[in-house]
Amino acid sequence: MNAISRLIRPRSVAIIGASADSGKTAGRPLAYLRKHGFDGAIYPVNPRVTHIGDTPCYPDIDSLPEVPDVAIILLGAGRAHQAVRELAQKGTAAAIVLASGYSEAGADGKDRQQELLEAAGSMRILGPNTIGLVNLTDGIPLSASGALEMDRFPVGDVGVVSQSGGILGALLSRAAARGMGMSKLVSTSNEVDLEMADFIDYLVDDEATNVIALYVETIRDPQKFRAAALRAQAAGKPIVAFKIGRSEAGAQAAISHTGALAGQDTMYDALFRQTGVIRAQRFSDLLDMPSALATGRTLRGKRIAILTSTGGAGTLVSDSLGVAGFEAPAPGERTADALRVLQADMPAALDRNPVDVTLAGLQPDLLRGAIRALAASDNYDALVMIVGSSSLGNPQLMADAICDCLPETDKPIIAFVSPHAPNVARLLNQRQIPAFMEPECCAAALQAMWHTQTEPAAQAPAIAPSPPLTDLPTGSLNEAQAKDLFARFGISGAEQTVVSTPAEAQAAALQYGSPVVLKILSSQIMHKSDVGGVCVGIAPELVADRITQMQADVYTNAGVRPEQFLVQQMVTSGIELILGFHRDALGSAILLGMGGVTAELLKDTTMRLLPEQGGLSLADAYGMMRELHTWPLLDGYRGRAKADQQALAQAIVNFSNMVASLGERLLEAEINPLFVLPDGQGVKAADGIAILTD
Amino acid sequence: MNAISRLIRPRSVAIIGASADSGKTAGRPLAYLRKHGFDGAIYPVNPRVTHIGDTPCYPDIDSLPEVPDVAIILLGAGRAHQAVRELAQKGTAAAIVLASGYSEAGADGKDRQQELLEAAGSMRILGPNTIGLVNLTDGIPLSASGALEMDRFPVGDVGVVSQSGGILGALLSRAAARGMGMSKLVSTSNEVDLEMADFIDYLVDDEATNVIALYVETIRDPQKFRAAALRAQAAGKPIVAFKIGRSEAGAQAAISHTGALAGQDTMYDALFRQTGVIRAQRFSDLLDMPSALATGRTLRGKRIAILTSTGGAGTLVSDSLGVAGFEAPAPGERTADALRVLQADMPAALDRNPVDVTLAGLQPDLLRGAIRALAASDNYDALVMIVGSSSLGNPQLMADAICDCLPETDKPIIAFVSPHAPNVARLLNQRQIPAFMEPECCAAALQAMWHTQTEPAAQAPAIAPSPPLTDLPTGSLNEAQAKDLFARFGISGAEQTVVSTPAEAQAAALQYGSPVVLKILSSQIMHKSDVGGVCVGIAPELVADRITQMQADVYTNAGVRPEQFLVQQMVTSGIELILGFHRDALGSAILLGMGGVTAELLKDTTMRLLPEQGGLSLADAYGMMRELHTWPLLDGYRGRAKADQQALAQAIVNFSNMVASLGERLLEAEINPLFVLPDGQGVKAADGIAILTD
Repeated sequence: MNAISRLIRPRSVAIIGASADSGKTAGRPLAYLRKHGFDGAIYPVNPRVTHIGDTPCYPDIDSLPEVPDVAIILLGAGRAHQAVRELAQKGTAAAIVLASGYSEAGADGKDRQQELLEAAGSMRILGPNTIGLVNLTDGIPLSASGALEMDRFPVGDVGVVSQSGGILGALLSRAAARGMGMSKLVSTSNEVDLEMADFIDYLVDDEATNVIALYVETIRDPQKFRAAALRAQAAGKPIVAFKIGRSEAGAQAAISHTGALAGQDTMYDALFRQTGVIRAQRFSDLLDMPSALATGRTLRGKRIAILTSTGGAGTLVSDSLGVAGFEAPAPGERTADALRVLQADMPAALDRNPVDVTLAGLQPDLLRGAIRALAASDNYDALVMIVGSSSLGNPQLMADAICDCLPETDKPIIAFVSPHAPNVARLLNQRQIPAFMEPECCAAALQAMWHTQTEPAAQAPAIAPSPPLTDLPTGSLNEAQAKDLFARFGISGAEQTVVSTPAEAQAAALQYGSPVVLKILSSQIMHKSDVGGVCVGIAPELVADRITQMQADVYTNAGVRPEQFLVQQMVTSGIELILGFHRDALGSAILLGMGGVTAELLKDTTMRLLPEQGGLSLADAYGMMRELHTWPLLDGYRGRAKADQQALAQAIVNFSNMVASLGERLLEAEINPLFVLPDGQGVKAADGIAILTD
Repeated sequence: MNAISRLIRPRSVAIIGASADSGKTAGRPLAYLRKHGFDGAIYPVNPRVTHIGDTPCYPDIDSLPEVPDVAIILLGAGRAHQAVRELAQKGTAAAIVLASGYSEAGADGKDRQQELLEAAGSMRILGPNTIGLVNLTDGIPLSASGALEMDRFPVGDVGVVSQSGGILGALLSRAAARGMGMSKLVSTSNEVDLEMADFIDYLVDDEATNVIALYVETIRDPQKFRAAALRAQAAGKPIVAFKIGRSEAGAQAAISHTGALAGQDTMYDALFRQTGVIRAQRFSDLLDMPSALATGRTLRGKRIAILTSTGGAGTLVSDSLGVAGFEAPAPGERTADALRVLQADMPAALDRNPVDVTLAGLQPDLLRGAIRALAASDNYDALVMIVGSSSLGNPQLMADAICDCLPETDKPIIAFVSPHAPNVARLLNQRQIPAFMEPECCAAALQAMWHTQTEPAAQAPAIAPSPPLTDLPTGSLNEAQAKDLFARFGISGAEQTVVSTPAEAQAAALQYGSPVVLKILSSQIMHKSDVGGVCVGIAPELVADRITQMQADVYTNAGVRPEQFLVQQMVTSGIELILGFHRDALGSAILLGMGGVTAELLKDTTMRLLPEQGGLSLADAYGMMRELHTWPLLDGYRGRAKADQQALAQAIVNFSNMVASLGERLLEAEINPLFVLPDGQGVKAADGIAILTD
């Protein structure tokens, strides 16, 4: 058994600094181990008492009767360090360090955390600043979380890893209240050693876990996270992640809380998308989605049947599903007939969805018949049961009816509880019928089940040979140099000539024979148009005059006399895009955005992280294109010519290969605009920047 | 007392078709009146029994000992009609009709509903298909809703009107569970007579009501709704509305449910915006927002202090607030000092927000001091208290500390409860501290309090004299006619000439002396460019040839030989917008949208409903412009020229006056594109359509 397995399922637990007062934090872990029936050995260490309850106490680590699998260290930051060293020397597999005052507490704390790691040697550390972990499968709480005051664990197959201890408690108590079972809960917090990815890996191999839920503040080792997430995907264990730091306020708070610098939030979107992780948008999704996924059922289409005995709530759910992109088509003729037979004496209109069996809520046979008819219909991919007030008196009837039908279909069946009736929701959840109290939560649950159906497997990275790069200029490249760099990687630019005089410019323009773009060429001036350094659509015969004027304007505006110019053939057709890259703590990512100010204001962009090696695949590139809201513009919107999608995809791949090949040497790069011409005509980089270091 | 007041606060209630079995729907109203202590007279009518409990029963309406204020009619649709007639003849103020089978049940049902109305004469009807109403202020339940099984009403100052009976019960039970008080709940359902607006009017005058919550499926009389909503706004009673029918699925379900045709959902957005109604986005907002508004506190800025004793939950709330557009700035120096004094022996970093008083959750003095310091700070506009697990043991301490500080500040103070602890949330709510279990609900509550602060008062309509309209053509106007119509209302078009031959076209173009746009002029062909009927940027000297070619192309493509053409000066600068109108059940609205395919795909549009008389005001027009996501394009984005906003605002007002003046004669009208030129240069309608009837 490796150290993580011993940590999660220890046969013996030492509790360093255990208090006899179970009201105190330091008294809780022992009390909880006893309360929840841990049957291994417990060794409290406390020099001031001989027993805690019936349990003998040891004065120090040295006196322990055996090497414990795990130690829970309840000492403050000042003393934890020494305990860690002694436990490590004894051969303890892992220690859980609750003390705070480490990396979340400034520079001193960071140093202290590093010392803690060194003291641990080969012993693994969970924390510091953690509330511990709870192994619900085996009934082993190794935690001081007040949530463990509950009498019984809700055991099930959702494994949870949280970077916040307080949130671990919140999730445990909320799951228990709704009757949702969990397998393991781990609070990793400062992650001096063991981190989220280690526990994802563990949970992938854990037979008791089928779904993984993550509360993420930051990801410290993105490559390790990616590998673990992809393993989970390959094992068919969906991951749902709620990540904070989506806003400036939240990002600041997260830094204060854990002392870790997070990457830009859109980078997390990319990371999650590329590893099949379902991103929870609301905090409640972090329980709602796993509770639905834990049924193991997937949604194969978006057509939902709604069975109700209360019209208003059925309509409410129908609308919420519609807002989330689902459909609620009317029953087909055969299904309507089947419903009619069930309810021969009722005037209900059975050609509608929601299917309203008003007053029939307490007739289990009718309910079973209706569920069977709807679940069997090819018109529907899932069924939402509305639980109205008529079911409150005997919710078991409703649960029995649904459970009787579940084995006959593999379609998802979930429930919406309309009145305030948490006991009914709990009962249904306990019987494997995901039940929700908010209509929007039904939609989120179905979306999660749809996601597992649609998410494509991760793409193998495309590793292309790099062109020679030894002769590249460094620093901020001028436009011609930048386009030359892009051209080396196969991204063609608009036709252009570098000139030094008005006469040369005129000669070049006359060769093109059509209106041109004139620009100053400078590595100092990044925003050429702001200083009068760009002119568009100049007739060839006017070029010399225009260049002379431009020289004067730029000198007036920027105090710099430009010595070179670019004469560029004007690209008059095609769709403008932006192709760039972003690098932060999470890695390097390619950014694709629709160009032009409108799209810029409306933020129509998407990102893909580069794999550890190489660039993006063509499939990645097509995926990015299709994620743009303005994708129809590239795809022949309203009878326009289709854009050259193949050339754009190849340009994205080529650009990603450039980013991968240059690695840390590349500080900034962006093609803006990149014109995508009609199908078969390729792409043209019309302007771009690049900054390289040595 | 008018009929609605007698309906809501009757001294006597007849129950027609009362059952002795309180388990049956027909047994409930009597049982609930007794249970909740109604002290007026109750007259059950049922020929088959002499008493229900101690209450004497009457065999028929004729035998009632007095004219009841209100009758609850529990008979089916077949017999309700006769009871309504008899009650009306006796002089009963109002009847509540629970039966279904009316307008929601097809054409027969619609006829039946009309007969019911006629039978009622001057007696008012609530319903049919209603679950009734509950007057919580005075302890009078006139309803069969199973939610009334609860032992005590949660009395408070939120009045609720729901168009669904089932939802009324859901809201009542959910509010009670969270300790949120209500004044009146009314289920209007089919609204054959009394409708939502009648009860809004009542609640505006009701002293016990300060906030109004609406569950809307459709608005049958928009002008009446508008008047009632504006009265509420003037009275300082905020309205929160949750409306379904946002999606196709929901709209279809709502039609089935109530038999009413709803308008387009974006029209409701406009109606709500223009009447100061806060639109609830999620079902839970319909209780969350009123519970916050009921404090009477408004949010004057977006800077929120978060006080926590559990880091994780503080971070979670901070991030959720950030996502919703709030800020969580760090405490100022003086506030940090004040906090430091309180917590002299603690190592906590007090220059951060969330302000983390870890381990201090149970020290009321410290809590009070921290609340006072944060509430007094000019850096903050509101305070969110995080309730962690340390407060669960004695939540009264936390509630007391907050309540002690409430009188000293008029800033909102709300609470987030992190572990599952509905009892704690209930306790706080009961003590006028809005408490939420989801971080996003905290954000929604604050947004509602901010909305009441920012919503401008409704604008007086602008009534402009109409130009002469007697000589207008009818049917589908060609482009020249449409632009002539717009010009009559003061919206100038691009310079243009109508011509019949290539030679005339050439002559016209040469007069403009710059590239022109050529178009066929046809009232039959709506999509000119689809058939080759538009050419852009044609040099004047090439115009004759191009027109000849166009004639041939259009004939080939459309089988029509165009006989007239438009030669139009090209507009080469300016921002493209769309100005149009939409009319449906909710009224006529002006639509403003950013032009171009990108904005179209990204749906950057906004709408304003016209008032009952006249057009929009200039303030309305500016409001619409600012609501566009791409508003910066009009406002000098990144150093560009500012657009002529004044001219655009005037064009919107003029267009709205045209729509108002033409009334039902105008079937369709759209200017697309409308070019807005740089400041001082006006707007130009470059193309447009209009369809008029006689």
